[in-house]
Amino acid sequence: MLQEIAEQPKALARTIQAERTKISRLGVFLKQREIDLIVLVARGSSDNAALFGRYLLEITTGIPVSLSAPSVHTLYGAKLNLRHALVVGVSQSGAGEDINQVLENARACGAYTVGITNEPSSAMVSYVDETLLMHGGRERSVAATKTFTGQMMLFYMLAAELAESRPVWTYDAIPDFAARALEQQPAILELVQRYVFMENCVVVGRGLAYANAYELALKLMETCYVVAERFSSADFLHGPVAMVERHFPVILFAPPGVMLPGVKSLIKRLRELRADTLAITSDLEAAGDCSRAIVMPKEIDEFVAPIPYIIPAQLFAALLADAKGLDPDQPRSLSKVTRTL
Amino acid sequence: MLQEIAEQPKALARTIQAERTKISRLGVFLKQREIDLIVLVARGSSDNAALFGRYLLEITTGIPVSLSAPSVHTLYGAKLNLRHALVVGVSQSGAGEDINQVLENARACGAYTVGITNEPSSAMVSYVDETLLMHGGRERSVAATKTFTGQMMLFYMLAAELAESRPVWTYDAIPDFAARALEQQPAILELVQRYVFMENCVVVGRGLAYANAYELALKLMETCYVVAERFSSADFLHGPVAMVERHFPVILFAPPGVMLPGVKSLIKRLRELRADTLAITSDLEAAGDCSRAIVMPKEIDEFVAPIPYIIPAQLFAALLADAKGLDPDQPRSLSKVTRTL
Repeated sequence: MLQEIAEQPKALARTIQAERTKISRLGVFLKQREIDLIVLVARGSSDNAALFGRYLLEITTGIPVSLSAPSVHTLYGAKLNLRHALVVGVSQSGAGEDINQVLENARACGAYTVGITNEPSSAMVSYVDETLLMHGGRERSVAATKTFTGQMMLFYMLAAELAESRPVWTYDAIPDFAARALEQQPAILELVQRYVFMENCVVVGRGLAYANAYELALKLMETCYVVAERFSSADFLHGPVAMVERHFPVILFAPPGVMLPGVKSLIKRLRELRADTLAITSDLEAAGDCSRAIVMPKEIDEFVAPIPYIIPAQLFAALLADAKGLDPDQPRSLSKVTRTL
Repeated sequence: MLQEIAEQPKALARTIQAERTKISRLGVFLKQREIDLIVLVARGSSDNAALFGRYLLEITTGIPVSLSAPSVHTLYGAKLNLRHALVVGVSQSGAGEDINQVLENARACGAYTVGITNEPSSAMVSYVDETLLMHGGRERSVAATKTFTGQMMLFYMLAAELAESRPVWTYDAIPDFAARALEQQPAILELVQRYVFMENCVVVGRGLAYANAYELALKLMETCYVVAERFSSADFLHGPVAMVERHFPVILFAPPGVMLPGVKSLIKRLRELRADTLAITSDLEAAGDCSRAIVMPKEIDEFVAPIPYIIPAQLFAALLADAKGLDPDQPRSLSKVTRTL
């Protein structure tokens, strides 16, 4: 897992280079088709990448996005009206039968289908009109890292092509920012000692960083066996905040941008409740208000933050698992491909 | 909270009676408008009702449904193409500024907007083209119960009117089934003693019962301060199952229907892992494979199960809070109306 985390800057750069022409062509084609709905379908870490894609695509393109409920297709056999929809399946292995059934059903319902996968010869490829590939090589750890950020990168590339006008962001600097994020490893190695006996926690993120909260929580569940909840800073206040008592651990993604004031006011509220807080942030006030912080480079702005900000979180989970005497590459009860319907 | 839980059968019957004509008229109007997308927007318990609505509406009407990400509208200021969309805001109080901002923005983007609320004179009413009301009277407990099932009932009524052909289900028997579910109270009063020291748990549901898992988890978080995760039985196997060790508590909604075989095979897997399982089910095999069970009447089928099956879960949370010496009507750190953007 640590090795694959470290491979991400190069993997991201290779994905940009290898897929740029194809996605540019796909963008032209989809604009002619007048797509008025995008449906994303995935499970596990890939579903977290899709959650990121949902925010980025809606904000950038103005096309409404829905995260698919696979059982509507696979168990209830619904026939949705998808004649003007783009349906994107996301799966590291391309082998998930449920995702592939949704893609097959969506195509039968009139959708144009795209697959995002790491396996060019997987079953998924036969169910989609176009395939977008990550180019970071085989992922051997059960806990997905480089394929997660690879999927996010493909969403950046797709959103840029589907935007009506030039987006306010570009993704080209992301591989370099990912490399900068990796420099946190020695600090995180020390930091995790403090969390060895943490049994449960809440992870908070919002907007473009909301999916990061889901992904860190999943990594903590699968590699560290921590009962990790995940919320947006707004949803957290609608009920779950009642759980918080003195020393309750809350980890917060607080990158710059429009959601930062809300996350900072949540941090202040958590401080009053005497929660134990850890922020991943470049904002020194947010960092100062937390029990601990992982301080990120200032140059990483809101729109490019999601990939570099998940990297210290991946390191945190991998190094915490190791500090707990667990093997993050072989979590109990899991295998690399999970078969569900 | 216990009193409001008990009021549900009558409240549901009143809502059916009071709103039937209006919703029937709305259905005729929306069919003429050729709606091709439904967007639901809510927070907290109302968001869990919307999650139920999402499954029911897609399965019944074939119109794709998206659960809105409010920050896309309120913080990122996105202008989505919603010209053929129906946007439904769900809020007990009708006072949530974020939900109302999304409704206002959606109307500016061309959507037809509907509000589902308990407060006919709330701000929400001014942002929507049509208002659907729950008729169960004022909700005084901070933890929503009768407004949650009231919102679900309005989704049944809306789905029935938007269906292309007559749906395979009818909702008329639901108030009676809700009354039957209340008969579980003495059994649950005894059962909760066993869970007084439970600190965390996972709640599982799927398909039409998926929202029930979210709602029970939220009730456990806000009234019992239990760190309660919520997953579909499929998502649970994609990583989080690694958390499960001997005695780890898992609560499962296992009503009859297409998702039952998957939930039952998860129960068997959890038994091998020696988890501590509690099923809410009418299936005697599922009940027998679990550590404990709340056994529901056999006549409650898949499509009407979500309302009667949440009632023992509400009772479980309220009675467990009481057994722990907590006041479920006044959870710490919460008030009835939560203001977020």
